[in-house]
Formats: sequence, C-alpha cells, structure tokens
Amino acid sequence: MGNAVGIGLIGTGYMGKCHALAWNAVAPTFGDVPRPRLVHLGEVDAETARRKAAELGFAKSSGDWRAVVSDPEVDIVSVTTPNQFHAEMAIAALEAGKHVWCEKPMATSEPDAMRMRDAARASGKVAVLGYNYIQNPATRHMKALIEAGTIGTVTHVRVEMDEDFMADPAAPFGWKSDAGSGYGALDDFAVHPLSLLAVLVGPVRSVIADMAKPYPTRPLSGGGARDVETHDIGNVLFRLENGASGSLLVNRSAWGRKGRIAVQIFGSKGTLTYDQERMNELQLYVAEGLAAEQGFRTILTGTAHPPYGKFIPAPGHSLGFNDLKVIEAREILRAISGEPAHLIDFETGLTIERTVHAMARSHEARGWIEVH
Amino acid sequence: MGNAVGIGLIGTGYMGKCHALAWNAVAPTFGDVPRPRLVHLGEVDAETARRKAAELGFAKSSGDWRAVVSDPEVDIVSVTTPNQFHAEMAIAALEAGKHVWCEKPMATSEPDAMRMRDAARASGKVAVLGYNYIQNPATRHMKALIEAGTIGTVTHVRVEMDEDFMADPAAPFGWKSDAGSGYGALDDFAVHPLSLLAVLVGPVRSVIADMAKPYPTRPLSGGGARDVETHDIGNVLFRLENGASGSLLVNRSAWGRKGRIAVQIFGSKGTLTYDQERMNELQLYVAEGLAAEQGFRTILTGTAHPPYGKFIPAPGHSLGFNDLKVIEAREILRAISGEPAHLIDFETGLTIERTVHAMARSHEARGWIEVH
Amino acid sequence: MGNAVGIGLIGTGYMGKCHALAWNAVAPTFGDVPRPRLVHLGEVDAETARRKAAELGFAKSSGDWRAVVSDPEVDIVSVTTPNQFHAEMAIAALEAGKHVWCEKPMATSEPDAMRMRDAARASGKVAVLGYNYIQNPATRHMKALIEAGTIGTVTHVRVEMDEDFMADPAAPFGWKSDAGSGYGALDDFAVHPLSLLAVLVGPVRSVIADMAKPYPTRPLSGGGARDVETHDIGNVLFRLENGASGSLLVNRSAWGRKGRIAVQIFGSKGTLTYDQERMNELQLYVAEGLAAEQGFRTILTGTAHPPYGKFIPAPGHSLGFNDLKVIEAREILRAISGEPAHLIDFETGLTIERTVHAMARSHEARGWIEVH
Amino acid sequence: MGNAVGIGLIGTGYMGKCHALAWNAVAPTFGDVPRPRLVHLGEVDAETARRKAAELGFAKSSGDWRAVVSDPEVDIVSVTTPNQFHAEMAIAALEAGKHVWCEKPMATSEPDAMRMRDAARASGKVAVLGYNYIQNPATRHMKALIEAGTIGTVTHVRVEMDEDFMADPAAPFGWKSDAGSGYGALDDFAVHPLSLLAVLVGPVRSVIADMAKPYPTRPLSGGGARDVETHDIGNVLFRLENGASGSLLVNRSAWGRKGRIAVQIFGSKGTLTYDQERMNELQLYVAEGLAAEQGFRTILTGTAHPPYGKFIPAPGHSLGFNDLKVIEAREILRAISGEPAHLIDFETGLTIERTVHAMARSHEARGWIEVH
Repeated sequence: MGNAVGIGLIGTGYMGKCHALAWNAVAPTFGDVPRPRLVHLGEVDAETARRKAAELGFAKSSGDWRAVVSDPEVDIVSVTTPNQFHAEMAIAALEAGKHVWCEKPMATSEPDAMRMRDAARASGKVAVLGYNYIQNPATRHMKALIEAGTIGTVTHVRVEMDEDFMADPAAPFGWKSDAGSGYGALDDFAVHPLSLLAVLVGPVRSVIADMAKPYPTRPLSGGGARDVETHDIGNVLFRLENGASGSLLVNRSAWGRKGRIAVQIFGSKGTLTYDQERMNELQLYVAEGLAAEQGFRTILTGTAHPPYGKFIPAPGHSLGFNDLKVIEAREILRAISGEPAHLIDFETGLTIERTVHAMARSHEARGWIEVH
Repeated sequence: MGNAVGIGLIGTGYMGKCHALAWNAVAPTFGDVPRPRLVHLGEVDAETARRKAAELGFAKSSGDWRAVVSDPEVDIVSVTTPNQFHAEMAIAALEAGKHVWCEKPMATSEPDAMRMRDAARASGKVAVLGYNYIQNPATRHMKALIEAGTIGTVTHVRVEMDEDFMADPAAPFGWKSDAGSGYGALDDFAVHPLSLLAVLVGPVRSVIADMAKPYPTRPLSGGGARDVETHDIGNVLFRLENGASGSLLVNRSAWGRKGRIAVQIFGSKGTLTYDQERMNELQLYVAEGLAAEQGFRTILTGTAHPPYGKFIPAPGHSLGFNDLKVIEAREILRAISGEPAHLIDFETGLTIERTVHAMARSHEARGWIEVH
Repeated sequence: MGNAVGIGLIGTGYMGKCHALAWNAVAPTFGDVPRPRLVHLGEVDAETARRKAAELGFAKSSGDWRAVVSDPEVDIVSVTTPNQFHAEMAIAALEAGKHVWCEKPMATSEPDAMRMRDAARASGKVAVLGYNYIQNPATRHMKALIEAGTIGTVTHVRVEMDEDFMADPAAPFGWKSDAGSGYGALDDFAVHPLSLLAVLVGPVRSVIADMAKPYPTRPLSGGGARDVETHDIGNVLFRLENGASGSLLVNRSAWGRKGRIAVQIFGSKGTLTYDQERMNELQLYVAEGLAAEQGFRTILTGTAHPPYGKFIPAPGHSLGFNDLKVIEAREILRAISGEPAHLIDFETGLTIERTVHAMARSHEARGWIEVH
Repeated sequence: MGNAVGIGLIGTGYMGKCHALAWNAVAPTFGDVPRPRLVHLGEVDAETARRKAAELGFAKSSGDWRAVVSDPEVDIVSVTTPNQFHAEMAIAALEAGKHVWCEKPMATSEPDAMRMRDAARASGKVAVLGYNYIQNPATRHMKALIEAGTIGTVTHVRVEMDEDFMADPAAPFGWKSDAGSGYGALDDFAVHPLSLLAVLVGPVRSVIADMAKPYPTRPLSGGGARDVETHDIGNVLFRLENGASGSLLVNRSAWGRKGRIAVQIFGSKGTLTYDQERMNELQLYVAEGLAAEQGFRTILTGTAHPPYGKFIPAPGHSLGFNDLKVIEAREILRAISGEPAHLIDFETGLTIERTVHAMARSHEARGWIEVH
C-alpha cells in the first residue's frame, strides 16, 4: 500500500460523510486501485474531530483544518465545509501542493471563484468540484449517445430542477429568505443543471432571467412577518454556444418535487430525456425504422453503462445517489494518475459560477446578458 | 323536434368532420337535449358539398357558403375552413343573426380578430372558438380543484406543447417554413396552452420570448436549399395578472412528442400536472397528512369528473380527443339556452390572439412586452 | 343511399347508445361506406322506444323487439339487451335472415351459446360479438407485430383485468353476490382478456383456476349480513395450444383499478405489454442492436396504426373507448361485403365461453381441465 | 473501539464485496454504532485471500475458511460462498459460537436447510439470511402501512419476478439448463418474492405450480442441441395462512425485464404496489376522501421513511441496491445487541425454502400442495 494516496478531509456534514464513504469504498468497488489511506480529518474542534475520525476510519484528527492541509502524508484534500470557506481552504491546499476535491458551489462570490481557478492553474494540481450528477451512468450514457451522433445535432434543450423544501408558506422566515444567503433558487439549484449542460451540450452563451417570489413575506417565529429577500423561483431562457435555444427553470417551492432534475435534449435525429428522481433510467427516442414502432425507450442502466458494472453485476438493480461519489473518487484518482477523467475542474466550474451571476444580472437588467 | 336547433357547417376537413360528428352525437350522448337538425352544408363546390352532406348526414348542401349563412333554418354556423376565411365567414354569420362556432386560431391578424370580437358584441349571439382541450374532464377537474383551493394560491405555472411534424431536417422546404404562414410554432401551438391558462389561471400580463430555428435552411425538392423564415421553436417567460411567474415552451420539431401539452401548476398547498398525451389522467399532489404518505396521485378520469359519465358509465375507460368536441357542442347548446357554459368566446379569444402577437413582438424587441 | 344497410337496434342502455353512436359515426369517420340507415329501434315499451328513437336518430320504433327482427328494411340487428336475452334475440334475427351484432358475453349458459353458434352456421349470415378491445389500434398493432415475428415465438403470456366496483366491503349485498348472477369476476371480466388472447396468441388449451372471495359476507341493507355466493377474484394458470404457459388474473375488488387490462406477451426476440387504462399506448422491447440502447419503447398510437388515422390526422391525440365501437361497426360492414374482417364471430365466441366454464369447473375440481 | 464487533468474511464474489462494503459503511452511515473491525478474510487460496484483504480492508487473511470461523477475534461470520457450501460453513461458524450472516438461498436441499436451522437453534446465536429486498425503506414502509391498517385487511396478493438473462434462445446450453442446478427460475427467483411476502403478509399455506420451458432445447457450443432440463418459467397460485389468494410468477427469460419484482397487495381499504426496478418508489391507493380525487400516489422514499435519512438528508435522491446491505448490517448489529431487528432468520428462511420445494412438488403432482 506504499503507493496508496493519502486522504485529508475537512468537514463532516453530509458531504463530508459522503467523501469518507467514497474513499472507503472506491478500492473494493473498482478493484483496480490501491485502497486510499484515510490520513487526517479536520473539524471545528479536536473532540469532534477525534470522534468523527473513529467513525469514518481516519488515522489522525485535528481541530485546525490547516493541520490537514499541511500534513505531508496527505495527497488530496476533500473540502466539504460551508460554502463561504471553500475559497480559503481550497487555495491553501493547492498552495501546499495538494490535490483538491471541493464541494459545489465553488464559492460565494465570483472574485473568490476566480482566485480559486487561478490557484489551481498556478499549482498544476488536480482541482475539481463535486458535481456528482455528471457521474451517473445514465447521464454519462447520454453524453456518449450525443457524442456518437445518435440524436444528431442538438437543436434545443430544457432543464428543470425542483424541490419543495421552501414550498410551505407557513414556514417561518429563515436564513434562506435573507438576502445574505444569495439569490435564492438560482444559487441552490442552477449550478447542478448547468454542470449537466456543460458536460452534455457545452457552455451557455447568453441568458435572460426572471426570478420570482412565490411568497413575498414569511411569518416570523415571534409573530408578524418579514419581507422575503431571495427568489425561490428562477426562470431562464438561454442560448448555447452553438446557437441552440434552451430553458432552465428552477423552483425550490415546488410541492411534490423532491429531487427533480428533468432534462430534455432535442436533436435532429432524436431526443433524450432524464429525470434525477428516477436516476437509473433514461429515455431515448430515435427517429429511425418504421414509424409504427418508434417510441421513447426507457433504458434501465446496467452493466452496459460503465461503470455501473463495478457496483452490481446485473442490470436494472439501481445505483444510489451516494454511489455517484464513489465514481467521482475513482475519476479523481484517474486524474491524479494522468489518465483522462470525467470531472468538472475549477476552470469549467468558474464558467458555471459566471453563468449563474449573469442570470442574476439579467434579472436586474430585465434583458439578455452575454455570459462570456 | 320542432325546437331542435338547426346546424349549418362550412368546411369538411378534419375539423368539419369533427363538428358533424359532434352535432350527430350530442343528443344520444347527453340524453338531455333535442337532437340538432343537420340542415345545410357548405363546401367549395356543389358536388363536393352534396357528397359530404350525404356522408355526414346534412339535409341540404351548397357550393356557396353564403347560402348556409343565410339559410333561415340554420341557427348555428360551424366555421371550419382554413384560418384566413374565419373572419369573413364568422362576421357574416353573426350579422345574419346566427350563433357561431369557429375553429381556432381565431384569425390570421389581430385587426381581423378585433373585427370578429366587435361583430360578436354587436350581434348579442353566442360566438365561441373551438378550444377543445378545455373541455376534457381532466382539465375541467383541474379547474375545479384550483377554484376549490385544493392547491392553494397558484404560485408558478409551466406549459410545454410539442410535436414532431417539423423535426426532420431532411423534409423539404414547405409552406410552414415560409414567412407567409406566420410566426411558426407560436401560431401553431401557443394558442392551445394559452386557452388552458385562460381557463385555469387567468390571463397573461407580460411576456418575453425567444423564438428559434433548429434548422436554418431546408432542402428544396429540386435541389439546393432555402432559408427557413419561420421559427419551429418558441420559448417564453411570462407573468400572470396575479404576478405569478411562468413559462411557455413550444416546439414543433421535438422528435418523439406527438401531442404533448404538459402543464405544471404549482400552488401554496399542492401541485397539479397534466399531459395531453395521457389525456385521461391528471396528477395531484396535496401537502397534507403524513409526509411519509404524500405523493403525486395519478387520477384517472371517470364518472366523478363530469361530463365523463355521459360517455361511459365506468371510470378509467378513456375518452378520446374527438369526444371533446361533443362536450363542446353541448356547452354551445347550453350557452344558446342562456345557461352558464364553459367556453372561450370571441372576447377571451381576442386576448389569446393578442398574447401571441405580443410574444412575437417581444422576440423582435428582445425585451419584455406588456400584453394589452 | 339505396344500398345503405338498414340498422335495427334492440336495447338502449349504455351499449345500445354505443351501437347507435357507432352506426351514426361510421360513415363520416371512415368516409368509404354509405351512411347506414337507422331503421328501427326496439325497447321494452312503445313510449320508451319512441323517445329513444328520436334521441338516437332511428326512423321507426317499437315496444316489441320481434318487430325489429322481422322488419324487411332491417339488414343488421344490434342486440344490446341484458345477457339472458341474447340467445333468443340473436337466434330469431339470424333465422329472419339478418346479420347480428350481439354484445358480450354471448349467453348465460354454454348450451345457449352453442345454439347461437349453430344458428349462425345455419344462417350463413354475419354473426359477431361486441368484443371491442380487439379493435383498438394499439392491440391491433400488437397483433401485427406478433404476426411479423417482431418478438419472435411467443413463450409466455400474462393477463390481468381489474376494477374496483366490488372493492368496498361495506357495500350491501347485491345481485352480483348472488349465485344466480354466475361465477363472479370470471363472468364479468374473463371474456375480455380471452378475446384479446384469442386474437393475439390463439386459444387456451387447458386451465387450472382458483376463485376467491375477498369478503365472505356482505351487509344486508336492513341489518345483518349474508354469505357471498360469487367470487370477486379469479386466478388462473393456463397453457396455450402451442404449449406456452400463461396466467389470467381477474379481480373486481381491486381498489384503485378502474379499467385495467394489463397484458404481457413474452417472445423469443422481445416483449409486448399493454394496459387498457392507457389504451393509446403499447410497450415494445426488441432484443436487437446495442445492449446499452435497449429498453421498452412507449409507442403512442397514431396514423401509423390503422385505422387511427380515420379518426384523427395527427398521432398521439388519443382515441376513446367509444371509438372502438365505430371501428367495430366498420369491420361488420366489411364482413357483410365479404371482405376480410377483424372480428370475433359466434364460432370463436363459443370457444371463449367454453374456456370460462372450464375455469369454473377447474376451480370445483381443484385440478387442471382441458378446454376443447 | 474495544467493543467493536469483529468481522470474518468467507467468499469475495459480488456478495462478498457487498458485505465488506456494508461493514465498512455501517458506522459512518448510521453514526450510532462503533465501526466494526474487519478481522479475517477467507478465500480459496492464501494469495487471493491476501490480495482481497488489502482491497477490502481486512487485517488478516487465510486460504482456509476454517481459520476464519475459529478466529477468536471474529464475532460474526459473513458466508458469501456458492450455495452448496452454505450449510457446512454456517453450521461450523454457529458451532464455533459465531453469529452468522449467510447469503440466500439458504441451502441446496431441504435437509441441509433444516440442519442449519437446528444449528442456529442450538447455538442461540444470531443466524440470518441476506434477504436484502426487505431492507428497502420502500418495502419497510409498505409493511408499516399494512400494519397500521392503511389498506385494511389484505385480500389478494400478486408478485412477479422477471429478468432476461436466459431469454436468448441462441445462447448455448449452460449449467443453468442442467438439472443439477435445481428447478430453474423457482430457485433463482422465488425466494426473493417469498421473503417479501413473509415480511409483508405472512407465510404461504398452499400452492399449485406450473413450471414451463420456453425453449425445450439449447444449442451446444460444438454444434447440435441438448434438451433443457430446468424450467425458466414458474407460475404459481397460492393461498396465504389467512386464506387470501395470490399468485407468484417468475420468468428468467423475460426480454426487457432487468430486475423486476412487481408486488401488488390489495386490501379492503386500499392497494399497495411496488416494482424493484424503481426501488425508490411505492404506489399507494387509499379509498378515502372524494372519489374525484382518488388515485395511486407515487411516494418517493425520503427522510420520512427510515432509515433513508441515515444515507441522504433530502428526500427523493435515491438509495441504491448496495445500500440495502448496509441497512442489513445495521439490523444484524441490532440483533446482536438484543434489540428488535428486521431480518429473516434461519427459522423463517427454512419456511421459505420449504415453500419453494412444495411448488416443485406441486408441478410434478399437477395439483395443490400444502406447505409444511
């Protein structure tokens, strides 16, 4: 195990747990890489760090994240802390010569994201963002189909992302309704569909956005109400670099939607659709053969859709959301070894961030904005 | 049968046939109205008119539509001719004191539509447009649920209408790609979702549109290619009168879509969805009861959803698209009797036309347009 | 119209209305046959007959069904009365030299069904049963696909038919729970799936059945309870003539099922499935091409699936249950003209009846029964 | 970590890997148990054992499984070897005072299964079978709903299990077509649905089965063909202990089915359905409230369905098949601690085995068989 990579982890919330599970599972699952060594875990205090290290399987722990970043046994730093800390930690890790796996969104401001991108460039290290939806064998197969020309030239794209955690108007005013938390649904959601678009159909060139508040006020716990400052709904029309038109609709007050990311990609020879709520399926329509036999095919992912077979030897048995992180970990190991990898690096990540900010500016300007 | 209404029909294409079938079926189906008398059929020449009258069950026929309009035995004139004739025929019929059932779209220009509306106002007669999607027991039940407050206040709306008859880039340049045919998908499709919106959530206040050409040129039959002048795709963001945001996406080059009209209506207490390709179903999510038992309910239309029971005494057995015309015919008879009726009259029809034109102007202006 | 066939109708319940609507609609819909003349309607009394004749468009009416059967202007007699009258009326009509369109089930006893078959044979007239599910363009296309070898040799078949009109245990004891009404779900439902099997995969050779009572007693309106004598559930395993195994499961106490007839046909090259609750769709899986692109195709019926195009010129717009009767009427006119027709005649109908009776005997015997 | 349980693992095929991953993930995932120590891995030879131990994270390895069973540091033995070794290994482990987690099916003969049950009884240790489908939050919620009376008394049950790995008639004769491999689909599949039935509606009392061969012969690699000795299809009717009727249909030659386990449970107040191919959903119909608003609810599993929330903090994001093993590991730790656990022990496992053998005997006898 001398050549096994050493893992540092900062943060042990849900995503920290996911990273730890992924680093634990990547070798048994793929069977073609040495088992990474879980070296050093950083948390807000020494006691939490020690407890979590035991639970997650890390050898060392520390109440100071800088100890993780500077640990010579650490090769990769997983950054899973709240968004406002991403820039500082990722840049420090890169400057210490570590590879970085940072959770999305990249940063809370465009300048921070630019500094991260610059640090990644300067370091020459692997610096990637945790956009796990792109790792799904279903979405990877969509990419393969598009690249193979199965649906021809992409002519039109629609994406929706909806959940309902802000749907109840009786829920009291919270930090997500405070302007300090950002734009609203645009921050929470838009980066995910944009990561899929980046991978599947390339970058967005121009946007026009209309953000909306389904509930202008929210009750205060102590009585009374307060004006909502963020937008739970975002409606965007866009054009891709190739000129194709599209729409991006996000709503975090959409009753009944739990993890919907509905993608429709129309091409000159066929159509692909996908919904994250049924993440083990994709739908393919190909305009060939007899008209009487054409229809959308529900393709269940299986061993024909890599790397599904590394998880389960039989098709149609379903991967889970957390499995996507294991695939991502494998891709990072691949990138570190200099192999081609399927990831969103800080370069593309910055483009995604800029697209979101362009949307917000478009809403203010009430007109089209070029992204650049 | 002395008090049975007399029917005149102009045009015997698909919609003419539908009207004839509906007038034939309305009495047996509903069992509460006298059987209308199929009095007079008008077609482009006397011979066609005579043949069609025999086939469709009309007593008289004529090669001149004016003979139908002026026939004293005729009480209602069904206008099912190509769109450019709607205004002249409908206005003539109204001026002759007839009720008018005119197919959509209303007219090929906004001034024509205004003249039709004015003629209807002046006549005091029933003047309605054949927006049959609103007659579906499923969409009528959606209206009932919204009015009952089942999903609370409407906060957001999305509508898509897609078919694939223009999806093949190898199909030669035809009249639908010629600027003379109108805007493109906006004309072909937008009026249908707008009729549903008008009935379900009220009129659209402002729009921003982006029309797109998936195929900039089309081959000419004799070789070479010609620039496409219409837009097969229309993307629209809008605001309703109550301020709620929404989107309207139409695409007549959407491979695999055959008759999709997908509606999503989000409210403060729940969500309603519907897809015309499964016209005998609606989906309802209500945020009440245990979280563990909440989910979208697939409601199959049945005897609990009037007037389904007039067609079939058992639920879940499916109405068809043409049945909607029979319901429409019954509503028209209701309107003529002075009863409350569920219809889109020339007044609301004009609003729908104006909304489409506003979308087209918004595309040109690349900015928001108020509909008025 | 001298050569238009003359229609007699006995019975004006739901199915009588359907026949009348179908005879009214067949000429306008298909456009290739003369409009039938609605000659003579028979009902239980003269007054009802007169009222219904006006509503449904019949020229003459009578309180005695024998007047319909013997009317020289009548060519075809539609028999839509309660089941116990089918044999007498159909036989009388055949003996009077009329063609007969009799609603299913054929008769209330096997001997009656045999007499009907014998009368049909003796008459040389068209004698068919109203098995409308086989007229659906979706099920007709399934037949075409099977015959074309698209799914290879049929290896296994499953059919379910479920509704919920007997699902409420609190519903009082009614005639359907009385032994006099027959076996139960087997009578109500089994003939329908058997008609589909007869058309799609041929006759059933042997059966073993287990009938069940979900509720052994039902409350009496006046208090107390009464033992249920019929079986609301029927479970059957069978073998087809070709040796393929199958199952037929019927349940009229299946909460939530409204008009489910779920068919699964497995073959050596693919699979076909269908559910009557979504009657405008079929699902086709073909084991060819890349494994990664295989999946069940949802085929929406359309103009590529005759005779859909006679009803609607665009695909995906949905036929309704009642439209199937119009197709059936056209097939009957075809049969009368000596053209090949897609119908279940009294010969095949008798086989279906015998299969149901064999199932009931198998339940009694608790063992396999050959149908013959 | 002194009180952490010590894990022994025999076998490192797919299921061995699953067990290792589960033991690795159980502590981070649940956060309420000490991380188990991966003590000793046994494989067929020392070299394979050493390599796999490094990959999966075990401290010791051995080419002799008996070394694992007798290791004093081992508390639980995971038995994941081919079926014919289960009895010997499980019994040895129990006799050595270890808890046993043995993969299904239990054994290759009924006497072996009885000996395993006897050994478990004698040992007083936790002895459970790896029936993971019962661990799905979706199926666990179905159990909770049934126990809460949400669908009333269960009146009827249908289960289907289908895959297509034997669907190709051109695939050469292999060991699965040899009588030595057992009955066929009944062995491969029936135990899984039976485990769900055991948990959801209780044991099966009597059965009648019809096994079938879709392809009587299979080609031999070297040319010619050989008679198939096993049955790729099994059709079973059954009665539960409470008298309710049901059906169990299994087919391993069902083109297009990949991991289908379709369950329909009908009750006096409602219906529950589930399909393993969409393992993160269940469907619930409850006959209450307005008829017009009743329908099958698609419930996406989420934090309201324990222990989903231990994996993902947001609903609708999907667990995977392998996650079920992690839940199973947690249940085993629970059982070892003397807490109530949701598992299928050797006692119930034996009942499941007996039911399968009864089905096979029923096929031979062509009649009903009581399971006992």
